[in-house]
Amino acid sequence: MAGFLFPKTPEGRSSLIPPPPWHYSGEMLTVEYRTDPDRISGLLPEGASLAAEDPGAVALIWADWQSCGDDLSELVDPVRSQYKECFVVVRCEWDGRTWSRSPHIWVDKDFALVRGYHQGYPKKLGEIWMTRPVAVGRAGPRLEAGGMFGATLSVTGRRIAEARVTLIRPAETPGFVNGHPMLHNRQWPAIESDGDMSMDELVTMSGYDSEIADVWSADADVELFPAPTEEVANLVPEEIIAGYYHRVGTSWRRGTTLRSN
Amino acid sequence: MAGFLFPKTPEGRSSLIPPPPWHYSGEMLTVEYRTDPDRISGLLPEGASLAAEDPGAVALIWADWQSCGDDLSELVDPVRSQYKECFVVVRCEWDGRTWSRSPHIWVDKDFALVRGYHQGYPKKLGEIWMTRPVAVGRAGPRLEAGGMFGATLSVTGRRIAEARVTLIRPAETPGFVNGHPMLHNRQWPAIESDGDMSMDELVTMSGYDSEIADVWSADADVELFPAPTEEVANLVPEEIIAGYYHRVGTSWRRGTTLRSN
Amino acid sequence: MAGFLFPKTPEGRSSLIPPPPWHYSGEMLTVEYRTDPDRISGLLPEGASLAAEDPGAVALIWADWQSCGDDLSELVDPVRSQYKECFVVVRCEWDGRTWSRSPHIWVDKDFALVRGYHQGYPKKLGEIWMTRPVAVGRAGPRLEAGGMFGATLSVTGRRIAEARVTLIRPAETPGFVNGHPMLHNRQWPAIESDGDMSMDELVTMSGYDSEIADVWSADADVELFPAPTEEVANLVPEEIIAGYYHRVGTSWRRGTTLRSN
Amino acid sequence: MAGFLFPKTPEGRSSLIPPPPWHYSGEMLTVEYRTDPDRISGLLPEGASLAAEDPGAVALIWADWQSCGDDLSELVDPVRSQYKECFVVVRCEWDGRTWSRSPHIWVDKDFALVRGYHQGYPKKLGEIWMTRPVAVGRAGPRLEAGGMFGATLSVTGRRIAEARVTLIRPAETPGFVNGHPMLHNRQWPAIESDGDMSMDELVTMSGYDSEIADVWSADADVELFPAPTEEVANLVPEEIIAGYYHRVGTSWRRGTTLRSN
Repeated sequence: MAGFLFPKTPEGRSSLIPPPPWHYSGEMLTVEYRTDPDRISGLLPEGASLAAEDPGAVALIWADWQSCGDDLSELVDPVRSQYKECFVVVRCEWDGRTWSRSPHIWVDKDFALVRGYHQGYPKKLGEIWMTRPVAVGRAGPRLEAGGMFGATLSVTGRRIAEARVTLIRPAETPGFVNGHPMLHNRQWPAIESDGDMSMDELVTMSGYDSEIADVWSADADVELFPAPTEEVANLVPEEIIAGYYHRVGTSWRRGTTLRSN
Repeated sequence: MAGFLFPKTPEGRSSLIPPPPWHYSGEMLTVEYRTDPDRISGLLPEGASLAAEDPGAVALIWADWQSCGDDLSELVDPVRSQYKECFVVVRCEWDGRTWSRSPHIWVDKDFALVRGYHQGYPKKLGEIWMTRPVAVGRAGPRLEAGGMFGATLSVTGRRIAEARVTLIRPAETPGFVNGHPMLHNRQWPAIESDGDMSMDELVTMSGYDSEIADVWSADADVELFPAPTEEVANLVPEEIIAGYYHRVGTSWRRGTTLRSN
Repeated sequence: MAGFLFPKTPEGRSSLIPPPPWHYSGEMLTVEYRTDPDRISGLLPEGASLAAEDPGAVALIWADWQSCGDDLSELVDPVRSQYKECFVVVRCEWDGRTWSRSPHIWVDKDFALVRGYHQGYPKKLGEIWMTRPVAVGRAGPRLEAGGMFGATLSVTGRRIAEARVTLIRPAETPGFVNGHPMLHNRQWPAIESDGDMSMDELVTMSGYDSEIADVWSADADVELFPAPTEEVANLVPEEIIAGYYHRVGTSWRRGTTLRSN
Repeated sequence: MAGFLFPKTPEGRSSLIPPPPWHYSGEMLTVEYRTDPDRISGLLPEGASLAAEDPGAVALIWADWQSCGDDLSELVDPVRSQYKECFVVVRCEWDGRTWSRSPHIWVDKDFALVRGYHQGYPKKLGEIWMTRPVAVGRAGPRLEAGGMFGATLSVTGRRIAEARVTLIRPAETPGFVNGHPMLHNRQWPAIESDGDMSMDELVTMSGYDSEIADVWSADADVELFPAPTEEVANLVPEEIIAGYYHRVGTSWRRGTTLRSN
């Protein structure tokens, strides 16, 4: 049976995702802020500790993506390439290095959900919206000082997060929280459902051939709202660090298993 | 009770749409083709005739929009400003002039649906996707010769229309079929539902302050598929005229009632 | 051109809705409560006054429907027959009679939206959920004392209303607020958008061949939440009257125009 | 960190799914038919062979579910309990026994998707609709001879499968294809994405405390349509065996790992 992932079939066309490499092009809105570092500690993998510098830093990032496998076939059937994403990134120390880590993340397509599971992202479905810059007309910001963007996340019909970002000036980089290799868990319980794990890995991964463009720093504001099935609101924003808009292209081929239990 | 449209309420905040002017910024993919003119005749208002020149010309257009009222408040709550649209445009002669007319149109938000009813567009809900150009990364076309775009329309879970557009060269204008003032009907049957009409108007409308940018001509292909509740497939493509990509900004303030029965 | 409503086409198959009669079968959860009558006054048509008895009574109703035209064809293509609905009903006096009236209503399909416009319901799209009773298994209430139901409404990704209903005992009728002929406005502004109306009617309508079954009275609770585009939360619940579950079947053929300006 | 599945968090409320047991109540429409057995061979796990009796039998099943964890909390927030499902079941022989196996399955909520991954179901998202029986009114079938039901599946905006089921008479059981313990693979590639597997299990599972009610046999018809990412249409229906409607309740606590590579 063929296919990178299930469903495995004779032709392999049914696989939820094609084999890597996967390619991504999109836009991101980022809000970096500080929370009480104790609120981050409980989200780190076993053996990891808070980042030495600015341990309470959090990035809340919205992304509007096109993505595809290596034959690019999804690009002309955009229902299979476009998706939106909202994710939290924190940092930690482990094995003498600093890592980024995404403890909460939502997307709006199944291929993005499951591609994330392969990479260790704990993805859920959500309803995600973010303002796009425009070149003509009045219905959108320009990529210029004062350009205003909004971004929202809803889960199970409840508004969970909102951000506003107002561009200030071109910048070199879109923040520092999401800038390290990712440190993720890949964990599946055994079907016996008794506490044993069938897969319990600590992994790392990064993109390659990453390019950024049109990076702007921004004033930013963020609000988080509680919900029965979500704990992102526990990462209470105490101080905004900065906001950013940028375009990004990246590809992904493989990660590395750091530890397997 | 306040509000431009229903629901009318004390504060007027509930109205499905704010009062005009309405502002729009977006991207369009256009495929112009020829069908048998007889297939267009049956879609024209009473008293109108086929266009004198190129009477079988049809434009099938996909658009990815942001829109807002005059206070621009929707732009930072993008669930209320972003929508996608797919529509058919044909031309006709009436009262000694040439008009454009949209006999079939689908959108994916209620505010766009009802704003269309105000303007005489016979809108339905559909699921609409179109490729976006990108600036970095491999997951999307550039605005350059060879850039490939796809666009799709589904209604009630059935694929109704697909187009592919491959950019050739910069162009002056994005086609000729959607270039005239619109000639639309605004009709609501009486609640008695016995054949009498409570509103039966022939109207025209155009945007103002329209700007276009990044216009490209393209090779194009289109396929239409039948469905129990749709007749767009009757506009059988016999010959492709051209394809186009462009960005557009426009505003809308009012139309004109040409005839009221 | 044929079709009960737009799009009008040669075959008439494209019409958003078939000609009446329309048939409906479904389940309803109702919460009746009292608000300050002043909060209702502002939602009544010109010339109407508060109901003489219990003027502050409000019904908030969730419904899970199948519906179809007279050839029943939608029933075997359920994407075209199933929809969910949440609506507010208040009462008023006009012309010496008592009427019901729906000032706020949300559905999740376009055919239901536009069928509502024909009947004078000021419908918007929303995301609507309600618990269903079950006959076997643990995942749902039985139609018996203690059976617990939940119902929710979200608009633009924001939770707007929630209700809980716990069955007490079989009842004769599912409340009194939604029990009169409806008194609705049907209003469309002229395309000139200058304050003149192209259609400005006061109408009434009722179903026929209505049947109810499995009526249960219930304890109930309701919460309303604010949103930028919604005023339903202004109908603050001050005292719960009662809750109800029931099944309902009804048909609709025509209404009556009471006044046309 | 707490939680049965990711995201693991301090409170454990964020887990995509609660710990088992999970409870389900719903309705099913089943069409059993025969295809060329060679079309089934390629969907079986390594070492399994076609069923000895009626090896080409396929069940295509639609289900409309409520489900919940053991505290039943999802039942009053129905956006978290209701989902629809369409799945294919075939049979095979392995280790001297007969098993059922689901090679293709689609659901419309993330919790159902990932619960399926835990059980070895290769789930994707799809748009699923099925007619419901009604007790009053004209808009739906009764559970009686002649009652007509429709069911549809769409993926990426394309109609993939349709069935019609017309009730004949009460029956003892709803078919034989989905009647054995499931034989499923649970497989995740290593993040190195080089062909090695991090989890590669053959598992089995069954529900417990299963109840069925209102079982009806039916005439049935099914159509399968091709799509770029789906191979279900390869299971070409050559002969209808039977159709069924039934209600079902079941619970699930654990499965058994049969083989782990």
